[in-house]
Amino acid sequence: MSVPKGFRDIEPDVARVRYKVVDELRRNYELFGFNPLETPAIEYWETLSGKYGEEAENKLIWRFVDPLSNREYALRYDLTVPLARYVASHPELPLPFKRYQIGLVWRHEEPQRMRYREFMQADADIVGSPFVEADAEVVNVTLRGLWSVGLSDAYARINHRKLIFRIFEKELQINNPLPVLRVIDKLDKIGLSGVENELLRLGVNESMVKRITELVQIRGKWSESEEHLKKIVSAEGMEIINELSELFSLIISSDKSTIFDLSMVRGLDYYTGPIFEFNVESTVAPSVGGGGRYDGLIGLLSKKTDLPATGASIGVDRVVDILIKEKQATRASREAKVYVVYLKPELYKHAWNVVMFLRDKGIRAEIDLMRRSEAKQRKNALSGGATHILFIGEKEIASSMFTLYIISSGERVTARLEEIVKQLQTP
Amino acid sequence: MSVPKGFRDIEPDVARVRYKVVDELRRNYELFGFNPLETPAIEYWETLSGKYGEEAENKLIWRFVDPLSNREYALRYDLTVPLARYVASHPELPLPFKRYQIGLVWRHEEPQRMRYREFMQADADIVGSPFVEADAEVVNVTLRGLWSVGLSDAYARINHRKLIFRIFEKELQINNPLPVLRVIDKLDKIGLSGVENELLRLGVNESMVKRITELVQIRGKWSESEEHLKKIVSAEGMEIINELSELFSLIISSDKSTIFDLSMVRGLDYYTGPIFEFNVESTVAPSVGGGGRYDGLIGLLSKKTDLPATGASIGVDRVVDILIKEKQATRASREAKVYVVYLKPELYKHAWNVVMFLRDKGIRAEIDLMRRSEAKQRKNALSGGATHILFIGEKEIASSMFTLYIISSGERVTARLEEIVKQLQTP
Repeated sequence: MSVPKGFRDIEPDVARVRYKVVDELRRNYELFGFNPLETPAIEYWETLSGKYGEEAENKLIWRFVDPLSNREYALRYDLTVPLARYVASHPELPLPFKRYQIGLVWRHEEPQRMRYREFMQADADIVGSPFVEADAEVVNVTLRGLWSVGLSDAYARINHRKLIFRIFEKELQINNPLPVLRVIDKLDKIGLSGVENELLRLGVNESMVKRITELVQIRGKWSESEEHLKKIVSAEGMEIINELSELFSLIISSDKSTIFDLSMVRGLDYYTGPIFEFNVESTVAPSVGGGGRYDGLIGLLSKKTDLPATGASIGVDRVVDILIKEKQATRASREAKVYVVYLKPELYKHAWNVVMFLRDKGIRAEIDLMRRSEAKQRKNALSGGATHILFIGEKEIASSMFTLYIISSGERVTARLEEIVKQLQTP
Repeated sequence: MSVPKGFRDIEPDVARVRYKVVDELRRNYELFGFNPLETPAIEYWETLSGKYGEEAENKLIWRFVDPLSNREYALRYDLTVPLARYVASHPELPLPFKRYQIGLVWRHEEPQRMRYREFMQADADIVGSPFVEADAEVVNVTLRGLWSVGLSDAYARINHRKLIFRIFEKELQINNPLPVLRVIDKLDKIGLSGVENELLRLGVNESMVKRITELVQIRGKWSESEEHLKKIVSAEGMEIINELSELFSLIISSDKSTIFDLSMVRGLDYYTGPIFEFNVESTVAPSVGGGGRYDGLIGLLSKKTDLPATGASIGVDRVVDILIKEKQATRASREAKVYVVYLKPELYKHAWNVVMFLRDKGIRAEIDLMRRSEAKQRKNALSGGATHILFIGEKEIASSMFTLYIISSGERVTARLEEIVKQLQTP
């Protein structure tokens, strides 16, 4: 029997990199004053329904009827809607509420797209503040998190939902801009000529296609994009541009860490303000995170509460993949791991006690559990990733002097156990 | 909309205790040479089916038909069967395979029984060794893990499936001992007279009930239990007693950390050898962990592979509950958290940069995100758990001398920012 299609088992080397990333992200969220909250994997279907747009709702959410209760449930599709559910049912929360959550989410992706149906997200959100300060805080905590796990070239692409609609609905006077926006969102995949062709196929006329393809090339430093946008947007739109200026000015090393990108639209239905996507310069991988402001979502979940909110999540498994492929993050740690070899079966209990002693001193230690010969124990030590072998023989026990074999150098050290411990503890 | 019935949201103080427990358990498993493996939350129904016994299979497993694929899936009920599935499909694994996994599992418990439908287990298993050395390693890593997270009074209750069947089938000649064993398993809940009554109700005759109630009182130090058992068990059973003696002799401070308990049966169908349960002396809570040898399970999942295996899991959420209720684990940490207050709106960006500087130095720092007045910022700092307030005014900026207010003592320190950082970094 196999792992379900689209799922995977994460093996030791990869799992350890993931733990490191999670630990570092958690430390970073705490530094910024975010608090952890853990919502369950399962939500009522009604909670998730009507939040993510049509495709997610019909094809991507793991939704099921529980035969024991006949209730309809769903596995969480992200960590944002469960947060909104929590906030909507806790009107007593002091605001702003800054929370982070690192956990698994499930999507019914087609396995052949090299996407997994279970993956880990790290999510930071601020509920209660309508101001760009909160958006900047979310972008900063995410950027700094990505840098601190080892992606020092991570940067944020930023756009604004209101600016998009302002330009496409008001300035270009497109009645229903959604199909056009969906085409634009594919710019990175299909290129400029691809966008042109798809727009023409949608029935957009040639002069309009020309205007749109000019617009979507507004991507780069905010100072330059701002000049460009001011020429396009009428007076009523200036407020959005000022808001973006304020946002960019609050982001850490904004000049190097951000670009404005009018072609970046993001799929999720619930965004209402600034939107973000996080990328890494050195890789062709898709984004490593994303987010934005979603001022209407909490109101959808409670008649009594309607609160502004903003947040961003990191695709932890994508980060882990990049760290492993491009930064060799899985190469073996240099931490000591001692395999204790007993020379005769009757010395087993003595060797066992030595192993326990080493572990108590904080040293990783292993012993044969298969009643193997000395030669096979040594073989097992080498294949199992040990860095040192400690031999337990009658002579050693009688003299209290033990021999430690250092695998990497072939060196042998003979000393009392306490001294061997000291040597192993210093890296 | 609410959290689904039987589920819960874990709030910040509790979540932080859980992270500490998980980190410490992980460190402990690594010390013992166990490797992490992460299997998915979802398995095919066929993988879980037929492994846990009737009650779990019909009432406790979250099982569902996925409407998108018409495939039948289940959420994992423990971490052991997914491991067995992994091993069965990886015949190339070097043995023994020592793995740990810390993750959520789902059970369809009745909510009123104060049990959660989603909870976290920490599981250590050894696959490939038929020897008690492996059982002892599993008991030791679990005991030491419980001690190191703060449950210094945790101990193991130990029994042996083969001994139970030996005694009840051969010595007492009960044809189908299962109903009798189920009654015995309830000893701690219903007491000795409760066991007597239920056995009589089952139709067991009085003299047999007397023999059984004598037997289940064999619980205590192994040295004493061993004497007792030797009188009951015929020659063919001596092998099991010798195996238990060997097991007890390999457990850390066995005298204080173990008891033998013939009444401890454990429900899961798949156990075949020594079985363990972990309890805490100081509390009336149910067990904090359990496990045992399951030599037949992997063979159920693959026709080609049949491997001996043993393992034990810790109920992480029960451990967290006990730590919070009995050891006050949630009392606020003494780590500094600085709230930076700006005295005038135009000083906001300066204050923002100071916050970023503090975070870069590893100090938790917060700033208002709601454009509040100075008075309201101070109020927010006090209610939000800050330990210090740093004031940013025009005078401070001009002189580069800042005032740090220490909330607990009411003291004020005026110094350069670098000196303030040094003071905050030393706990």
